[in-house]
Amino acid sequence: MNAFIGVDWGTTNLRAWRIDNDGTPQSMVEAPLGVSAIARDDFANVFARVVHEPLGADLPALLCGMVGSNIGWRQAPYIACPVALGALSRHVIHVGRTPAIAIVPGLSCRGLTQASDLMRGEETQILGWLAQDATRHAGQRLVCLPGTHSKWVIVRDGAVERFVTAMTGELFAILSTHSVLKTDVSTCDEEAFAEGLDAAGDGDALAIKLFSARARIVADGARPDTSSSYLSGLLIGSEIAAARRVLAVAVEEIALIGAPPLTALYALALGARGARVSELDGGEAVRRGLYALAREGALQ
Amino acid sequence: MNAFIGVDWGTTNLRAWRIDNDGTPQSMVEAPLGVSAIARDDFANVFARVVHEPLGADLPALLCGMVGSNIGWRQAPYIACPVALGALSRHVIHVGRTPAIAIVPGLSCRGLTQASDLMRGEETQILGWLAQDATRHAGQRLVCLPGTHSKWVIVRDGAVERFVTAMTGELFAILSTHSVLKTDVSTCDEEAFAEGLDAAGDGDALAIKLFSARARIVADGARPDTSSSYLSGLLIGSEIAAARRVLAVAVEEIALIGAPPLTALYALALGARGARVSELDGGEAVRRGLYALAREGALQ
Repeated sequence: MNAFIGVDWGTTNLRAWRIDNDGTPQSMVEAPLGVSAIARDDFANVFARVVHEPLGADLPALLCGMVGSNIGWRQAPYIACPVALGALSRHVIHVGRTPAIAIVPGLSCRGLTQASDLMRGEETQILGWLAQDATRHAGQRLVCLPGTHSKWVIVRDGAVERFVTAMTGELFAILSTHSVLKTDVSTCDEEAFAEGLDAAGDGDALAIKLFSARARIVADGARPDTSSSYLSGLLIGSEIAAARRVLAVAVEEIALIGAPPLTALYALALGARGARVSELDGGEAVRRGLYALAREGALQ
Repeated sequence: MNAFIGVDWGTTNLRAWRIDNDGTPQSMVEAPLGVSAIARDDFANVFARVVHEPLGADLPALLCGMVGSNIGWRQAPYIACPVALGALSRHVIHVGRTPAIAIVPGLSCRGLTQASDLMRGEETQILGWLAQDATRHAGQRLVCLPGTHSKWVIVRDGAVERFVTAMTGELFAILSTHSVLKTDVSTCDEEAFAEGLDAAGDGDALAIKLFSARARIVADGARPDTSSSYLSGLLIGSEIAAARRVLAVAVEEIALIGAPPLTALYALALGARGARVSELDGGEAVRRGLYALAREGALQ
């Protein structure tokens, strides 16, 4: 295969790399041009100007993320789990032919409630993590992708078997900005973070425990500038406890994929609960995943 | 005792009644002048102009709510549970003497986490509910005050024994306004509300279940205008399950105190779980409570 352009096009941001035929990223563009800011008719123009022109207008391109959603360029229907991730190359949706421009579909599965659960973009990151080490294709693995909507994913023999989404990052953002718990998000206070983790306990009764973030300041004399770290520990601790319980998976090694400052916090929290973790940068994961799909023929 | 002025002065709103010596409300003022909008030095002026002047400048006044907090007129320290509510009249803080102006303190108790739990204003409503029927002073009772920060309170022999706070109302408001779940809050769709209650299950894994409010629209074809009712059912159902479990109280009759549209929703949810409920308007409860405290000598 030849060089191509790999694009991670999310709700609020766009990142694109020119990727060499051996998988090496050559150049990159990044822009705050998420799909939520773009009218459906305008995707082709934005893509030509922001991605194709600087990175090579004659190159084929493979896109993943919310660009394939109902607010994106074109809808790439969700594929129902279990899904062998390598096979996703056969399910891409083409929005251009010369050169090829294709969108990777998201995944759906039976959710914890009657509703389904969904991912878009993370499937490509998980594939990138699998592609990084061939031994990961065998056996049962647990992958956590922390973020606005964190995903916890059971991967078995290279296929996504099941996953759940936790709205942890979004809860942290709106509670920190708009609620009675609002604080200046400051540097992490490790002691307050650990106190929040401890308060999370088994992840039960979150709406009740949230109020403790206020009470510890108002009534118990904790420093207001530790509030953000406490809230972060409480939310992350609750997510970890709840996700591991509802997935009922006895895997003690967890792969974290995401932004390094965030995976580091999750590693701290998981370490405190006795789990072994590895960390992979989310940008590297998506690049590796797009490359794996291109090698499987997604752009043909 | 003589007529007096009773005031419920919260974070965002002020309500005051001239209350006759037999407890009958005679006239009322209401203003969007919550304590969060008033500088500490300005409380006496605002009170004189907005409350005393229209309702009778020579009358003593008893105030409850956030007016006694660290952002209020003067701090009335929390009293630690268990607290016999009638005895609160001995713990009021005077901010004026001729005529008397006094503030009712809030309550604190050991929380679900290491942090304390807190209430301010609800103690007066609970006392009003007790005062409404003398038989309520005997035995163990469970009271729920739904709102921005819902309170679940165990009352034993007229004393508040323990309580927990759930941030349900605030979570609903910020999720509906600022998150990916944002919706036009519309009229209640009973079917979607029941579906949300059902999804709440035992109240576990709330951050994970929240995402189902989005997935049921995006993936499962539910009508977007039912989203608000589903979210409301999910949050209220989670609160009820978690609060009853953490309080570990085997009371099947629950007294609801609050705004009638909200207590009606909780009554629906509790009824679906087999509990017997009664409802009392929050405004009536606070008036009755202030009257009970005035009769106990709070303004002397």
